[in-house]
Amino acid sequence: MKNDLEQLMKANNADALWISGAASHNPGMVYFTGNIHVSAGDLFIIPGRKPVLFHGMMEREEAAKTGYDLISYAKYPIQDFMKQANGQLLEAAALRYRKMLEDIGLTSGKVFLYGTREFGPFFALLTRLQELMPELEFTGDYNDAIILEARATKDLAEIEEIRKMGRITVSVVQRVQDYLASHKVENETLIKEDGTVLTIGDVKSLINLWLAEAGAENPEATIFAIGRDGGIPHSTGTPEDPIQLGKAIVFDIFPCQGGGGYFYDFTRTWCLGYAPEEVQQAYDQVKQVYHQVVSELQLGENPAKYQDRTCELFEEMGHATIRQNSAIEEGYIHGLGHGVGLDVHEKPWFGRKEDPTNCLRIGSVFTIEPGLYYPSKGYGIRIEDSWYVAEDGSFQKFVDFPMVLVVPMKGG
Amino acid sequence: MKNDLEQLMKANNADALWISGAASHNPGMVYFTGNIHVSAGDLFIIPGRKPVLFHGMMEREEAAKTGYDLISYAKYPIQDFMKQANGQLLEAAALRYRKMLEDIGLTSGKVFLYGTREFGPFFALLTRLQELMPELEFTGDYNDAIILEARATKDLAEIEEIRKMGRITVSVVQRVQDYLASHKVENETLIKEDGTVLTIGDVKSLINLWLAEAGAENPEATIFAIGRDGGIPHSTGTPEDPIQLGKAIVFDIFPCQGGGGYFYDFTRTWCLGYAPEEVQQAYDQVKQVYHQVVSELQLGENPAKYQDRTCELFEEMGHATIRQNSAIEEGYIHGLGHGVGLDVHEKPWFGRKEDPTNCLRIGSVFTIEPGLYYPSKGYGIRIEDSWYVAEDGSFQKFVDFPMVLVVPMKGG
Repeated sequence: MKNDLEQLMKANNADALWISGAASHNPGMVYFTGNIHVSAGDLFIIPGRKPVLFHGMMEREEAAKTGYDLISYAKYPIQDFMKQANGQLLEAAALRYRKMLEDIGLTSGKVFLYGTREFGPFFALLTRLQELMPELEFTGDYNDAIILEARATKDLAEIEEIRKMGRITVSVVQRVQDYLASHKVENETLIKEDGTVLTIGDVKSLINLWLAEAGAENPEATIFAIGRDGGIPHSTGTPEDPIQLGKAIVFDIFPCQGGGGYFYDFTRTWCLGYAPEEVQQAYDQVKQVYHQVVSELQLGENPAKYQDRTCELFEEMGHATIRQNSAIEEGYIHGLGHGVGLDVHEKPWFGRKEDPTNCLRIGSVFTIEPGLYYPSKGYGIRIEDSWYVAEDGSFQKFVDFPMVLVVPMKGG
Repeated sequence: MKNDLEQLMKANNADALWISGAASHNPGMVYFTGNIHVSAGDLFIIPGRKPVLFHGMMEREEAAKTGYDLISYAKYPIQDFMKQANGQLLEAAALRYRKMLEDIGLTSGKVFLYGTREFGPFFALLTRLQELMPELEFTGDYNDAIILEARATKDLAEIEEIRKMGRITVSVVQRVQDYLASHKVENETLIKEDGTVLTIGDVKSLINLWLAEAGAENPEATIFAIGRDGGIPHSTGTPEDPIQLGKAIVFDIFPCQGGGGYFYDFTRTWCLGYAPEEVQQAYDQVKQVYHQVVSELQLGENPAKYQDRTCELFEEMGHATIRQNSAIEEGYIHGLGHGVGLDVHEKPWFGRKEDPTNCLRIGSVFTIEPGLYYPSKGYGIRIEDSWYVAEDGSFQKFVDFPMVLVVPMKGG
């Protein structure tokens, strides 16, 4: 949680955190600033002082919402440094940043770099700045040891933000289900009121629309995939595909607040009207594994344990799994879950056995999403809910939604 | 344009381009891959061979849409490198990337880095990889000399993509205007059908909704700001503010295709019902400057020239300008425009005088957006259209939309 940060910085010999980029779709920044309209900023977290945010002059009111110490970039016009830099833009930018760092007293020590942004120019800038300021050591936090470690456990306010997204998510999922069930059917195919065939693309447009209505967005595309596409876990679905009875539809939706904020992650698999026996059997197996694994979750465990356990359970049922062969394309072929927060994938990880900090703790938020994939047989199955560890150490689902494969059609 | 790339690489001694990150909201990647669902990739552009895309095994079908040579990350399981790395994750990752680079024959030469992604971990990886592969030189393209230079001129297909976004944009703007004009008014304030006051927040929700309906999104927040807020160029507006007659509303909308793609950028300023004389006067001045500058645009010129010219025109009218003082907050206080493409702000720049490549050429796409800001007097004005240079060298607006301050109310 955020109040672990100072201790985490100490443990990692961090003298400062430098978080760069916009305050939207930039989890490292949004964690500190909230979702404000700052299109470019440099935030410095230095123990013992208020955070300092460099911001564009025109965004000062948005920047002020943070309550941090503010410094406008306008104090450092680039042309003032161009002469000293003999007209070289990169050199001028490096001199400018040196002055900015000097002004906040950051001239020595280990500086950890964060922020989602265009990589190349900042890499060039830092490489030169490192030469200009040899007393500083710029480094990246490859082991997620500081900010992502703090973010790995959520406080109550964050849990409620995520639950809010959960409620929005299942309300959209319910709306999609009702919409599908209301269609007429001809030759096993859903038909719209105008007489044309209902397609994957039609439904995806409505999902986006309904998310927007609820103030949410799905920055990476929602997965709504039918038949064979559903058997390719990250296929988002083919827009032209008609929606037909008896074919498994994998609906994986992971929205966040508009502009970037906390995510929710959720999947259901449906067959409209009826399900072929093999698909129903596979569904029941996935559901059984889901419930079995959930019943075994324990505080303090590395979640990689449950990935192993899931493989074991699927193997006992006769399915190939990814722990037998990391390149398989049929059977159980992905991880059991992942942490969820300002990133849709974050700590805790389900594949990081060696890391003792990678464990289920109070405030952990994560998905459980077993699945079976048989594209050659024309189907895939996945069931997913997001979970958290409550203050009393119990494991809680954020929101409920029925786990039923067959969606009966209401239309004629 | 894309076919300038090989020549640009040669001119900058680039042996390879390495573009990293997702294929959504990552302009450097989307330029090559199109808008596909690849959540993490490494793309290598090496002269004389087909581009190579490393991708997640589960995203192979999406990756295949590029037509590039594909290599799955699953070929390089991280645990295979952990032993050699004594269990150190960063070291294992660096050894893994060394193997990947060796496998595509990239073991020496200058490699330019691109891609929007989380900065810190990749910085750590490259720092270590640089030590492991001293024959390679990793560098950032601070001067936008290669990919952004190619992107700075658009081919006909790109122009049409942008025009498509332009059409969507003005259709949403028109819808907002009609919606506003249809309201009842009480005490100068717009009243909804349910009898409550219409707010900035209400209108912004509808803008997002109508963009989503059209398959578009505004990844950074749309600006819809009234009164004093409109006088702060990057204030996005206060959701609780009521919409009132006679107050200038700055409506700056810059959507792109859902998931990231080509942007359009457009602004109108409106007063509902009537305009105070001072606001009307300022509006007429901004409009006059807009038309004057547009009439002076010439092929081959550095657009910084027109920023100077705009300052000159506003100063003649008695306004303070940013060229007199870069920290001013009233008058004409920002740049005249910017290039538009896969980034909402890109080359050509209106403030880069020294760069001879920064000029208006066939295929240039850019905004013209003069404005006047007087927050202390409770208003701001901005007018903006996106323009391009056609194949015959003429300057063309993408789409038309009336430039009129006062929006008459139709309601009772």
